[in-house]
Amino acid sequence: MTEAIQVAPAPYKRIATEEAFCPPEMLDRYRRLIEAKTVPEIGFNSMWGFYLDADSPRCRFIRDHLGDLGEARLAHMDQAGIDMAVLALTSPGVQVMPAGEGTSFAAQANDWLADAVARHPNRFAGLAACAPQDAVAAAKEIERGVNRLGLKGVIINSHVQQQYMDDTKFWPVFEAAEALDVPIYLHPATPTNRLIEPMLERGLDGAIFGFSVETGLHALRLIVAGVFDRFPELQVVLGHVGESLPFTLYRLDYMHAASVASGRYTAMGPLKRKVSDYMKENFLYTNSGVAWEPAIRFLQETIGVDRVMYAMDYPYQYKPEEVTALDGMKIGAVAKKAFFEDNARRVFKLAG
Amino acid sequence: MTEAIQVAPAPYKRIATEEAFCPPEMLDRYRRLIEAKTVPEIGFNSMWGFYLDADSPRCRFIRDHLGDLGEARLAHMDQAGIDMAVLALTSPGVQVMPAGEGTSFAAQANDWLADAVARHPNRFAGLAACAPQDAVAAAKEIERGVNRLGLKGVIINSHVQQQYMDDTKFWPVFEAAEALDVPIYLHPATPTNRLIEPMLERGLDGAIFGFSVETGLHALRLIVAGVFDRFPELQVVLGHVGESLPFTLYRLDYMHAASVASGRYTAMGPLKRKVSDYMKENFLYTNSGVAWEPAIRFLQETIGVDRVMYAMDYPYQYKPEEVTALDGMKIGAVAKKAFFEDNARRVFKLAG
Repeated sequence: MTEAIQVAPAPYKRIATEEAFCPPEMLDRYRRLIEAKTVPEIGFNSMWGFYLDADSPRCRFIRDHLGDLGEARLAHMDQAGIDMAVLALTSPGVQVMPAGEGTSFAAQANDWLADAVARHPNRFAGLAACAPQDAVAAAKEIERGVNRLGLKGVIINSHVQQQYMDDTKFWPVFEAAEALDVPIYLHPATPTNRLIEPMLERGLDGAIFGFSVETGLHALRLIVAGVFDRFPELQVVLGHVGESLPFTLYRLDYMHAASVASGRYTAMGPLKRKVSDYMKENFLYTNSGVAWEPAIRFLQETIGVDRVMYAMDYPYQYKPEEVTALDGMKIGAVAKKAFFEDNARRVFKLAG
Repeated sequence: MTEAIQVAPAPYKRIATEEAFCPPEMLDRYRRLIEAKTVPEIGFNSMWGFYLDADSPRCRFIRDHLGDLGEARLAHMDQAGIDMAVLALTSPGVQVMPAGEGTSFAAQANDWLADAVARHPNRFAGLAACAPQDAVAAAKEIERGVNRLGLKGVIINSHVQQQYMDDTKFWPVFEAAEALDVPIYLHPATPTNRLIEPMLERGLDGAIFGFSVETGLHALRLIVAGVFDRFPELQVVLGHVGESLPFTLYRLDYMHAASVASGRYTAMGPLKRKVSDYMKENFLYTNSGVAWEPAIRFLQETIGVDRVMYAMDYPYQYKPEEVTALDGMKIGAVAKKAFFEDNARRVFKLAG
């Protein structure tokens, strides 16, 4: 896929915070779900139906490396100068499975992940998977993952079988994360059936556009529904430079205030803080997939240097030269170390 | 709505480039269309169904001022220090009307607009409305608007009765604009029925989020469909700091290349240039609704100082203090004059 470039050492550790894996068995489960046509999700069937069999170099690379938490991954990390990877079960994780199967497979995946972390505690940390389709069981699995397995946060792959988590039935997940003081990584999934078609018919449903619409919408739904008024300490991580939401802070505040004042929506009432306040106080951001200084600096300037973290998005985007480019960003040494290392250590409580 | 603030003079003329109007009769037509339930568009019925009757100060202000191209508007422009307004028929214009009615009402609206411009040639310029639902007639009306009426571009309010203009049946509109050397302003409309529901149920379908999804998707569909390979001189204006697309330039290029290489989509083939090249060479941008220096500077730095223009979005957003804030942006004098005046003069061919 990429030639082995040895990235130069840097005066900071590089911690990559949105790195995907799955137990090899999961792709077999996806294949069975797709062949049996039991998942009524256009995006899941389209995307994984393609990725499972496609012969392109990128697809093969992804399939070959998602299931590895051993030597091959560590070698790629070494080549790219990544000291530590914060691992999360790849999207959509167990969220497409029936509730019981999802709950039990999340536990299996978390055990498998915790074993890998135990083998390489200086290289790997992990986020707990859960099946929010049974929110009470999900909250228990989060607690087990954090307290027993030493996992450092929660991975949620956007919608839960076409539903957004602003529905209060999902809020036990938020309650657990807040109580345990761990962040939730709100990662993209393919857009819901009610969003995807006008994107899919032009190839725009995925990482190029649709993922950010889906995930940005989900994040905004949580905010306007009052999730962060109910759970004021909850911290949510958004990848892909915040799914573009930080670029819209001004308009979010202006139009939220205007909508509330107009009384147009029964589902949009007053909040305790401005939308941008939640974006600055309850959200963290990574640059996954976006090795681009202007967008990273924009986040640092508008959100704050202490809330922007490095991510690579391996194995979906493995480009060691992107690391070199980011090492060369024209930002101060303190801000750069915050980006690559310090923020991740604080947010995920990683030993220094 | 807003106290009369006298904005201080500046060493440039301020040209506002996304300013809405409608002939008073249009709102009556909208009312009849909504009451007769003849427009099968969730967004149109929801939004205009609300705006036509709502009693909030903002809604009343909008209704009271859309239909005025005379003294009240000029007084507001004076208060806010706006020297010149580039006017466009408000969204969705005639695009919700049956083709014949849309075509004839577009001509009426263009005549009405041209009369106002003739009365105040130093204060107003205008864009031609058209009904792309009959694309050949639309092309003729664009030609009439530009050549006979002296209009300076074309206003398109995103989807045309739920269809996007990457469908070649709409391309006579692009052909006409390119041949006449006038820009198309691709303005938001409420999202199509296949996008709107998960936004609408949380009040996120409008200017706060959905407008940008709808319009950004439309712009990307045009690019990936090859509109700008076919019409390489065509220029399209995007408001609202580019509907956030410029913030995603890196990812657009990376993922378009990856998708083309993977062969996943029959509807996404190779293009002559990178997606970001089209964004830099075939698109212009305004800050309508976003009086926020960080986003404006981001566009100037990543797209170019000569492609970012000022807009107010009157009467939807009338805030003279926003003009003062933008006057105070920490950008050089040349870049600031380009933003407020020079780019608009060049793009819309306005006499100096």
